[in-house]
Amino acid sequence: MEHGADLLTYKDKFEGELIDFSSNINPLGPPEGLDEVLINSFKFLVAYPDIQYRHLRESIAKYLGACKENILVGNGAVEIIDDFIMKSGSVTVMLPGFSEYEKRAIAHKKEVYRLYYNDDLTINMDEFNNLEEGTLLVLGNPNNPSGLRIPKNELVKIYKLVKKAKAYLLLDEAFFEFCPDDYNSVELFKEFDYESVGIIRAATKFFALPGIRLGYGCASKKKVIELQKSQLPWSVNALADAAGQHIFNDKKYIEDSKLYIEGERNFLLTELPKIKRIKVYPTKTNFILIKLLNCNEKYVFNFFLSRGILIRKCSSFKELEGDHIRVAIKSRENNMKLLYIFKELSKGEN
Amino acid sequence: MEHGADLLTYKDKFEGELIDFSSNINPLGPPEGLDEVLINSFKFLVAYPDIQYRHLRESIAKYLGACKENILVGNGAVEIIDDFIMKSGSVTVMLPGFSEYEKRAIAHKKEVYRLYYNDDLTINMDEFNNLEEGTLLVLGNPNNPSGLRIPKNELVKIYKLVKKAKAYLLLDEAFFEFCPDDYNSVELFKEFDYESVGIIRAATKFFALPGIRLGYGCASKKKVIELQKSQLPWSVNALADAAGQHIFNDKKYIEDSKLYIEGERNFLLTELPKIKRIKVYPTKTNFILIKLLNCNEKYVFNFFLSRGILIRKCSSFKELEGDHIRVAIKSRENNMKLLYIFKELSKGEN
Repeated sequence: MEHGADLLTYKDKFEGELIDFSSNINPLGPPEGLDEVLINSFKFLVAYPDIQYRHLRESIAKYLGACKENILVGNGAVEIIDDFIMKSGSVTVMLPGFSEYEKRAIAHKKEVYRLYYNDDLTINMDEFNNLEEGTLLVLGNPNNPSGLRIPKNELVKIYKLVKKAKAYLLLDEAFFEFCPDDYNSVELFKEFDYESVGIIRAATKFFALPGIRLGYGCASKKKVIELQKSQLPWSVNALADAAGQHIFNDKKYIEDSKLYIEGERNFLLTELPKIKRIKVYPTKTNFILIKLLNCNEKYVFNFFLSRGILIRKCSSFKELEGDHIRVAIKSRENNMKLLYIFKELSKGEN
Repeated sequence: MEHGADLLTYKDKFEGELIDFSSNINPLGPPEGLDEVLINSFKFLVAYPDIQYRHLRESIAKYLGACKENILVGNGAVEIIDDFIMKSGSVTVMLPGFSEYEKRAIAHKKEVYRLYYNDDLTINMDEFNNLEEGTLLVLGNPNNPSGLRIPKNELVKIYKLVKKAKAYLLLDEAFFEFCPDDYNSVELFKEFDYESVGIIRAATKFFALPGIRLGYGCASKKKVIELQKSQLPWSVNALADAAGQHIFNDKKYIEDSKLYIEGERNFLLTELPKIKRIKVYPTKTNFILIKLLNCNEKYVFNFFLSRGILIRKCSSFKELEGDHIRVAIKSRENNMKLLYIFKELSKGEN
C-alpha cells in the first residue's frame, strides 16, 4: 500500500511514540464538543443512517454556501472521487499527484491519460490542449504532494478547456481550508451551476478526523442525481453523519486552525530553506514537499524514523524518483523537532 | 430508493414513535459494553484506521474459526458484495432476492443473469444447470425476503455445479447468526480452502449495528489479495474497527440473542398462520415474508403505518407482485402489537 500514516507497520522500529509527519492532519485536533455529539449519537447506531443523508447534506450545503441538492456525501474524499471515476469515459491525471486517482481508474478498467507538471511542479497550460472527449480530469487543488494551489486565472482557463473538450473537471480539494483565502472554487463555479465541474472536500484533514471517514462533493444537481444512482448505500456511518452536522458550524475553530497553520507554514518555509542540500517547494497548504539533493529518501526516512519521526517517502508518487520526501506542518514543538533532525542530517553529510 | 428502515420519510405520518418492522435488526440491541469501547476509541479518530485492518481481521478470523488471511472487511456487507461484483465476469442473481445485487451489477455495467425460486420460494436445482463461465452467483443464505436457508445438501450440490461451470459462488449470510445451528458454511467450505466460494456476513443485523457499517467476508487467501487490490481504502471507520474487536467476543450475548429470536420466531410462526387471508412463508431467520391474499401491500402498509408500525412493502423485490409484505421479528411486546393489528386488518375485511 502506498499511503502515509501507516503507524502500525513502523511502531516497533522506535522505542517510544512516533510523531507522524507522514499524514497531513490539522495539529489542533478535532473541534471541541465532538465527543459529546458522538456520545449523544450512539443511539443512532441501532438504525441505518438516512439513506439520503438529508440533514448531513443540509449542514454541508450551509457550510459551503451551496444547495443541498448540489451535495454528495461519501466515505472520505476517495469514495466520492471513485463515484465520479466509475461514471467517467476515461480518467486524466496529472503527475506527480495522489496515486489513488490512477489506482481507482485502473480498478474500474478505465483508460488513464497522464499529463505532467513542469519541473518546478507548476502548471503547464499546454498540457490541457488535447483532452479526450468525456474524460474526467482529476486535479489536486492544492496538489498532493507538491502543495501547489492552482492560481485562479489558470483554474478558469483549465475549466474552459475542459468544457471545450466536452470533458469533466474534478477538483480534489481535501486540503482546501488550510489554504489562503485567495478564492473559493465552490463560489467561483456557482455561476456556471457546476456544469462540467465537481469539487471534493472532506472532514479528514482540516477537521482532523481521518478515522471518521466523511467526504463530500459539490456538483450540479443533475450530476448529483446521476452519481447517487450508483453510489453504495449508507457508506457514511451514523457517527460520521452526526459529526458532520456539528463540526462545520464551529467558525472559531475554523478561523483558529487557518491562522495556526499559516503561522507554522511561514515558520517552516523560513527555516527549512536554511538547511543545506535540500530544496523546499513552495506550498499553500499544510504539507511541504522537499527534494533531497544528495541522499535518497530511504536513508532519510530511516534517519528520521530512528529519531522518532515518521516522514513520507515520495517514490510512490510517479515522477518523483526516490529523492523526495513530504512532511506535514504540525505543532510548533514538533516542527522544531523536525528542524532539529534536519539540521542533524545535514551535519552528518558534511 | 428501495430499502426498509426509511424512518425519516415516514416519521411525520404518525403522531408518536414508529415501531420499525421494516428493517431486520436484533431486538436485543448491541452487546453490552460497546459504549465504553467506543468512548475509549475516540482517540483513534484523529488517525487513519490501519489500512490493512490487521487487528480487526484477526478478531473476525477468531470468531469465524478461519485465518486472518481469509478475511476481508468493508463498509457493511453491501460494500464487500460490491467488491466481488466489480471483479466478476457477470452476475447471476436469484429472484425474488435482495435488490442491491442486481443494482450493483448494473452500476458496474455487468451482464445480469436471472434465476428463479420455485413458486413456494424453495430452490429448484435445475436453475443451476447452465451457469455462465466466470459468473458470480450471489445467493442470500438465508434469502431476503423469503427467509429460506439453503439446506446443506442443496448448498453442496450448488457449489459443485458452480465449480463445474468455472463460476464463483457468493453467499450473502448477513442473517446467519439468527438461523438454527444446522451447519456453518465457513466450516463447510474450509476443506475446499474456499476455492470458488465467498461468504459475506456483517455486524449490521445480528449485532444490531446498522449505523456502524461493518461487514466482512471469508474467501480464499488468493481471492482476498485479489479483492484488496481494488477495494476502497479505509472504508471501515475507526469506531467500527474498534467495535469489531469487541462484539464478536461476547459469547453470552450471541447465545442469548439466538435463543431470543428462536423463541419469538416460534411464537410468530404459531400465531401468524391463525390470521385469515394471509400466507406465511416458513423462515429460518429473523424476518417473515407474508403473502396478502386479498388486499394489496399499499393498503396494508398504510393500515399499519396509521397504527404506528412501519412494515416492508415487497414490490421492490422483483417477482413479488405488490401483494407481499415482510416483517421483522422483534420483542414480544412489539410482536404482540403486530399481531393485534393483523387481527384488526383481517376483521376489517370481513
